[in-house]
Amino acid sequence: MRVLSLPQKNATPRIEERPEPEPRAGEVRVRITAAALNRRDVFIRRGLYPSIQWPVIGGSDGCGVVDAVGDERHSDLIGRRVVIDPSLEWGDDPRVQGPDYSILGMPHQGTFAEKLCVPRGNVHDAPGHLTDHQAAALPLAGLTAWRAVTTRARLKPGEKVLVTGIGGGVALAALQIARAMGADVWVTSSKPAKLEAAERLGARGGFLYTDDSWRKQAAKAAGGFDVIIDGAGGAGFGDLIRLLAPAGRLAFYGGTAGKWPAILPQHLFFKQVEILASTMGSHAEFAALCPFVETHGVVPVVDRVFDLADGAAAFDRLEAGAQFGKVVLAIG
Amino acid sequence: MRVLSLPQKNATPRIEERPEPEPRAGEVRVRITAAALNRRDVFIRRGLYPSIQWPVIGGSDGCGVVDAVGDERHSDLIGRRVVIDPSLEWGDDPRVQGPDYSILGMPHQGTFAEKLCVPRGNVHDAPGHLTDHQAAALPLAGLTAWRAVTTRARLKPGEKVLVTGIGGGVALAALQIARAMGADVWVTSSKPAKLEAAERLGARGGFLYTDDSWRKQAAKAAGGFDVIIDGAGGAGFGDLIRLLAPAGRLAFYGGTAGKWPAILPQHLFFKQVEILASTMGSHAEFAALCPFVETHGVVPVVDRVFDLADGAAAFDRLEAGAQFGKVVLAIG
Repeated sequence: MRVLSLPQKNATPRIEERPEPEPRAGEVRVRITAAALNRRDVFIRRGLYPSIQWPVIGGSDGCGVVDAVGDERHSDLIGRRVVIDPSLEWGDDPRVQGPDYSILGMPHQGTFAEKLCVPRGNVHDAPGHLTDHQAAALPLAGLTAWRAVTTRARLKPGEKVLVTGIGGGVALAALQIARAMGADVWVTSSKPAKLEAAERLGARGGFLYTDDSWRKQAAKAAGGFDVIIDGAGGAGFGDLIRLLAPAGRLAFYGGTAGKWPAILPQHLFFKQVEILASTMGSHAEFAALCPFVETHGVVPVVDRVFDLADGAAAFDRLEAGAQFGKVVLAIG
Repeated sequence: MRVLSLPQKNATPRIEERPEPEPRAGEVRVRITAAALNRRDVFIRRGLYPSIQWPVIGGSDGCGVVDAVGDERHSDLIGRRVVIDPSLEWGDDPRVQGPDYSILGMPHQGTFAEKLCVPRGNVHDAPGHLTDHQAAALPLAGLTAWRAVTTRARLKPGEKVLVTGIGGGVALAALQIARAMGADVWVTSSKPAKLEAAERLGARGGFLYTDDSWRKQAAKAAGGFDVIIDGAGGAGFGDLIRLLAPAGRLAFYGGTAGKWPAILPQHLFFKQVEILASTMGSHAEFAALCPFVETHGVVPVVDRVFDLADGAAAFDRLEAGAQFGKVVLAIG
């Protein structure tokens, strides 16, 4: 089978041939029809995680059709169109992943391949209203957003939400999930075009965080946010916590802009706010996300589709940071 | 009646005469037998809150006997020994105090007086095992610790807890409540004698935060804390969040040491931890605290008892920061 391989740190991803994997007991094999890139794949390419074993066949997001099973009792799954839960061995504690947790795509083979074996519990029927490309855009970003918005920030209908850095996959999924839950959602970006695109997806408004007065504009527009979803951190994090409403919850799933600034606790404790760390999500959360997406007709935003053979261009697209939505790989 | 009055900013508190207050409909009058000081009273004396109207008759903590009621239907309360809930008009939202919220003792007259009228809902039977001095040491610190430990940090039996700055009223109450709930509790201080005193109260151990290696010692002793209760903030806050266990919760109720340092979000999100602002507590929380204290035989720690007429010395004691437990005023 063909795979997209990262032969070593900073190398250009390239097509290689590998033997087809055979499903073991408890596993199913998926013939992948579409995959999607995540920032994680870019970080792997740059060698930013500890003890990476090269070559890496990455990819946490995938959609496809089950074409073989390791157990007779799973034979009814053959032919099913599925999306793949990117969490492996979350563990028993719904609050936090256990010591054996890993994410599909490193160290184990990921979805940038024509075939992939995963535990049976990691495949779910693909939402019927989505194309394979759209379904492949759902898993990691959708799961991360789902946990941050629902389990962690405990969003309720009618609440006011701010999602930072709109255009990224998690931010867009957070916007879509929050809208589907009946919240009023505002967004931030450094690009006016991304704010406009977010408004077309249902955002009430947006703010250019490069504008010095953005916090004042946001406070005026919304009064204070019940929920803030942030993946950037950095100096701007100080503005975010000041924008929390009383009893507000800020869930953060990343820190691409680095350290939070020094923060005065007095700005927080009278408001009884919460700062909630979140990463990925459990199997139960993924299982809840899929029917939610189907019921509410959520369509993950696809930025561009590249052929697996053009994987290098797909990586470049994500590296440039100009995308709005997920960068998808069409496979087979 | 005699009151302890702060005539103006930074003045020495002094005894003055005032007319006895009469309870209005819905209120009861308490003949105060003991009051206690809080850092808040020191901050009021220093004029650190906005728009203070001088003179101030402060005091958020009190124990006494109901001696008059504004309504016939409350006449069964006359003669009852009560502690006073220091929260006034919390409001309808259990998550956060409403816009009309205030704390007993400023702007309204507080407990540093022979008599005080409060809403009927603000008096609760004093726990039977406590002296008046001990009962007067409970309200504000106990309520603040109760909310931080239970409602906010959601402590469970058997969990590992770290309480910073042991010796302060809230920190001691947090230690006692957490112990009574069946948790393993460690503490920090800058004074070896306070660590030893905390161990006599049930702490498993303590760390001198003035010692450069304290974080390493704490990590070795406990492995990581499920719950941290902090009222200091400041540069040391960076050490605290690194000491959180996976799914750990840090509840903070103050920031006497100032701003938190810059924090790298990557140190937090993989652990799925929570940073929870907390201040004071609701009427429902105070109503839950009182029977908990009685059931578990919790005895609030009294540092020293001063006569109301020696109020200036009591303020000095708290200003010096050498206390271990509450500074109490004996009245009448």
